[in-house]
Amino acid sequence: MVAALERAVELSARGLGRVSPNPAVGCVILDAEGHMAGEGWHARPGGPHAEVVALDGARTPSSAAGGTAVVTLEPCPHTGRTGPCTQALLKAGISRVVYAVADPLHEGGGEVLQQAGVEVHGPGSDLVPAEFTQSAAFVNEPWLTAQRTSRPHVTWKFAATLDGRSAAADGTSRWITGDEVRADVHQLRDSVDAVLIGAGTQRTDDPQLTVRPAPQDGRQPLRVILDPSGTTAPGSRVLDAAAPTLLVLGTDAPEPDAPDRVQIARVPKAMKEAGGLDLDSVLATLYARDVRSILLEGGPSLAGSFLAAGLVDRVVAYLAPALLGAGPAALADAGVATIAGTHRLEPIDVTTLGPDIRLIARPTRRTDR
Amino acid sequence: MVAALERAVELSARGLGRVSPNPAVGCVILDAEGHMAGEGWHARPGGPHAEVVALDGARTPSSAAGGTAVVTLEPCPHTGRTGPCTQALLKAGISRVVYAVADPLHEGGGEVLQQAGVEVHGPGSDLVPAEFTQSAAFVNEPWLTAQRTSRPHVTWKFAATLDGRSAAADGTSRWITGDEVRADVHQLRDSVDAVLIGAGTQRTDDPQLTVRPAPQDGRQPLRVILDPSGTTAPGSRVLDAAAPTLLVLGTDAPEPDAPDRVQIARVPKAMKEAGGLDLDSVLATLYARDVRSILLEGGPSLAGSFLAAGLVDRVVAYLAPALLGAGPAALADAGVATIAGTHRLEPIDVTTLGPDIRLIARPTRRTDR
Repeated sequence: MVAALERAVELSARGLGRVSPNPAVGCVILDAEGHMAGEGWHARPGGPHAEVVALDGARTPSSAAGGTAVVTLEPCPHTGRTGPCTQALLKAGISRVVYAVADPLHEGGGEVLQQAGVEVHGPGSDLVPAEFTQSAAFVNEPWLTAQRTSRPHVTWKFAATLDGRSAAADGTSRWITGDEVRADVHQLRDSVDAVLIGAGTQRTDDPQLTVRPAPQDGRQPLRVILDPSGTTAPGSRVLDAAAPTLLVLGTDAPEPDAPDRVQIARVPKAMKEAGGLDLDSVLATLYARDVRSILLEGGPSLAGSFLAAGLVDRVVAYLAPALLGAGPAALADAGVATIAGTHRLEPIDVTTLGPDIRLIARPTRRTDR
Repeated sequence: MVAALERAVELSARGLGRVSPNPAVGCVILDAEGHMAGEGWHARPGGPHAEVVALDGARTPSSAAGGTAVVTLEPCPHTGRTGPCTQALLKAGISRVVYAVADPLHEGGGEVLQQAGVEVHGPGSDLVPAEFTQSAAFVNEPWLTAQRTSRPHVTWKFAATLDGRSAAADGTSRWITGDEVRADVHQLRDSVDAVLIGAGTQRTDDPQLTVRPAPQDGRQPLRVILDPSGTTAPGSRVLDAAAPTLLVLGTDAPEPDAPDRVQIARVPKAMKEAGGLDLDSVLATLYARDVRSILLEGGPSLAGSFLAAGLVDRVVAYLAPALLGAGPAALADAGVATIAGTHRLEPIDVTTLGPDIRLIARPTRRTDR
């Protein structure tokens, strides 16, 4: 059973960056003897749900009968673009359903199944180890956060030396971290709906912000540039045809000189930050475009604004075993004046990537907004 | 055999901070059947060497006969304050000696034993796993470094947030890291001959710099204050009777108002740093006082001076999962202008201490001086 649970979580993660505004879900079907008979994951919005894919892929049409469906999210009882998963499971004769996380959006799937005579085990049950619930919830944390807050989930990633510098005194920064970190950043990009930077980073680094090498399915995250004054120059790499791009301009910015394929949105400027955009409006705009997860790759000031506003949900810190002693800090003003106001993080995972350290953590003092 | 090797390393570490100018050495005696028959470590300069302690403690006077001595450092053939260990081993009838690290100071111990018919296995032999040599060399790295460079080994420890701040914007810093880190710092202090700070940190923090709780043997490291202008005020905690103290003054500093128990040394000021002392002279003075290992607990500027001079041999970084965005950096000018000049470190160990991360590393671009 544990192997099926782990496999279901693994499968669910394949949908990340591809299924918004839906959750990423994985499913494993065990036959009546407990052998793996089918597996599936939700792969695109409007496409079949994980349970249906797994049932369709089961070894024989009858192998699901009397078997178990292991799902990372509570099966939905809801008819949307596809039919309810609960019906599909009942029709296949599944006699037991094990799911990791309750669905906060379409409640009642478990109950429907139970009333139809299916044995149902949700989070907290003996059949559902806490680690299964945790790892499934971690994969779906962006979607769950977006459900709760009605804004996209924000991951801030940064790379720095042990003394917190992201570049040397003369501005040079290639490379502070190693190859393994670069590969990991591309995986991070691959897992989100959008990557976001400010106009300053755009001008200084002229990054392309694509997943490299390009994923097999060719999908690239939306590149979002916060550009209050419309300064993104024609020919900038973020405007190329390699991935979709959204320029978020201030309401009074001039019309940009950008190819037609580039999307434009306009939001109010923030009162408090000179030249900045109102971040709540930025996130609302992205949410309305079905963006549920964002990777914040901006500079120290933009990161500080997001943190100060309580809008960072996950931090991925790449720390190089190196010391600079001078040069720009990885993080600028984040609204902290005294030690009691420190943005504390709850570590989720610490690992080494080549010579570097990766820490994944969650702000604990976040204002849920 | 592996258990005996690990035990010998463990025993050797007990001497740290207590045996300078001697190395820390551990020894395990196995009888002819390979059972542990005795163990010992070098505990104080002038006291018996590890081999002699282990032989004396062996179960019966004859249990070492035909047995094996496992030692972390090559047995010495040298008569100093105590007789040669090689003689003690031969007299006990030891027939095999396994040692982890060659002695660069008193060479030839292995050869003496071999010529007397003892089977000798040193580093690189099949009986001596590389990990044994590595962990034994790690314990004795301060002494080995001091042998090579004729100056004390310097460990720089610092605590910082993930963005490299050691305090908030208003200077508050209690507590960035947690209880486990504080306990670890006291263990670090317990393992070195001296702890060292600058006059700035002394004035600002008024630290006591003792091991707390006090170790069972009551031994405290020498507290060294680099005080170019003699500004350490009477009543400062580093001048209390809890531990020995050495004030290192500039040659032209006024006579300090300090208790008689406080030692005084004078060294030239450095040309390049306003008000600083010449660090080579500081280390030479400490070496002459039998200090072989130093824990640098000074502020960001002093650490930067040591790093820039290539005088840091080990870095212990305590990183709190927290973000500040403002406040003093953990490290100030360390002589790096561009990314190619970064002080790169080779990680030795990454571990979590409660919520915090501890990285132990070794500078790789160090000038061996």
